[in-house]
Amino acid sequence: MPIRRLPERAQHDRADLYAVLDAMWVATLSVAVGEVAQSVPILYGRDGDSIVLHGSTGAGTLRLLAAGRPATVCVSTIDGFVYAESLFDSSANYRSAVVTGPVEVLSGAAADAALLALSERIMPGRAAEVRPSTRKELAATVVLRLPILEGSYTVKVRDGGTGETPTTDDTWTGVLPVHTVFGTPVPEVDGIPVPASIHARLATGR
Amino acid sequence: MPIRRLPERAQHDRADLYAVLDAMWVATLSVAVGEVAQSVPILYGRDGDSIVLHGSTGAGTLRLLAAGRPATVCVSTIDGFVYAESLFDSSANYRSAVVTGPVEVLSGAAADAALLALSERIMPGRAAEVRPSTRKELAATVVLRLPILEGSYTVKVRDGGTGETPTTDDTWTGVLPVHTVFGTPVPEVDGIPVPASIHARLATGR
Repeated sequence: MPIRRLPERAQHDRADLYAVLDAMWVATLSVAVGEVAQSVPILYGRDGDSIVLHGSTGAGTLRLLAAGRPATVCVSTIDGFVYAESLFDSSANYRSAVVTGPVEVLSGAAADAALLALSERIMPGRAAEVRPSTRKELAATVVLRLPILEGSYTVKVRDGGTGETPTTDDTWTGVLPVHTVFGTPVPEVDGIPVPASIHARLATGR
Repeated sequence: MPIRRLPERAQHDRADLYAVLDAMWVATLSVAVGEVAQSVPILYGRDGDSIVLHGSTGAGTLRLLAAGRPATVCVSTIDGFVYAESLFDSSANYRSAVVTGPVEVLSGAAADAALLALSERIMPGRAAEVRPSTRKELAATVVLRLPILEGSYTVKVRDGGTGETPTTDDTWTGVLPVHTVFGTPVPEVDGIPVPASIHARLATGR
């Protein structure tokens, strides 16, 4: 069940990449530190032809990136388990993307705009429902932009069934879908209506 | 919303690590290649105090690991979005684990046993429902074991609400849960009953 086995799953279309990136919220951010890759999970968002990352000014991995070390951002999700007639031919439906390259540290208005774009990916519509961020809050946040350059990314999608012709009539083959869904919002204070931003997420599943 | 911001989220208990590892199926596998971290998504499974990885004998990243390059395995999942009164204090509930170290290439009976353990994590119960793998299939598969050594892993969990006392009575705060669920099995051939392995998954959600 190696999910890279079939090379034809690789795609190189930017629209495919964006669709994969926009469908998820958390990436694995990795940097090479000597002989070892250092990885951390991180929330991310696509802003046009860039990936936006942010974090505390004290975060070690972000400091390495800010100092010029190339970033590797990997996102993936399982969409289903593909049950074939053998374990060897069984597989998973999935979407994944990897983007690599040096990042740019944003500041001023560019940082504020990128942070807002990131927020709109992670909590769409929420920025309009809360007070603006303060100067102090913005200053405590590192905002990084990873440009998505040609040749710097791979996107892979496996979809569909086993791709095989059944050889027996008693072994079930097919796909068990896997979905990511929202649950019922859990309020911290009673009596305040669920906001429009969350209603929209529940309606769209995003 | 940096998901690493609060250091108290870090845990170092092996039971916590195993719980996080056992709750997911796909990891980001990274290796340092010169100045750049090379990442690929990969199915994995925990087998006792090791992580098992497998893939085609032709997969480049696995070849690097087999040659002695340390592996970094990162898993993460979002469990909810935490809506605070400001974007700055908003966050995500999540679970993540990172395990690093050199891998061991398994062969013979050890490889077969590890592969079976991996299969039981990814498709529990399926091995008993299909024909055994052939020698040829097993020979085409690289099986790697990443021992989970003390000091070689980190596990982080954020759970709960905003942790704040409301300062307004008109801004909704709380958590929007995110769940991973199975859909309805999609058969490739009509008339064959859904197998026990899938019924069990649907019942347990695993």
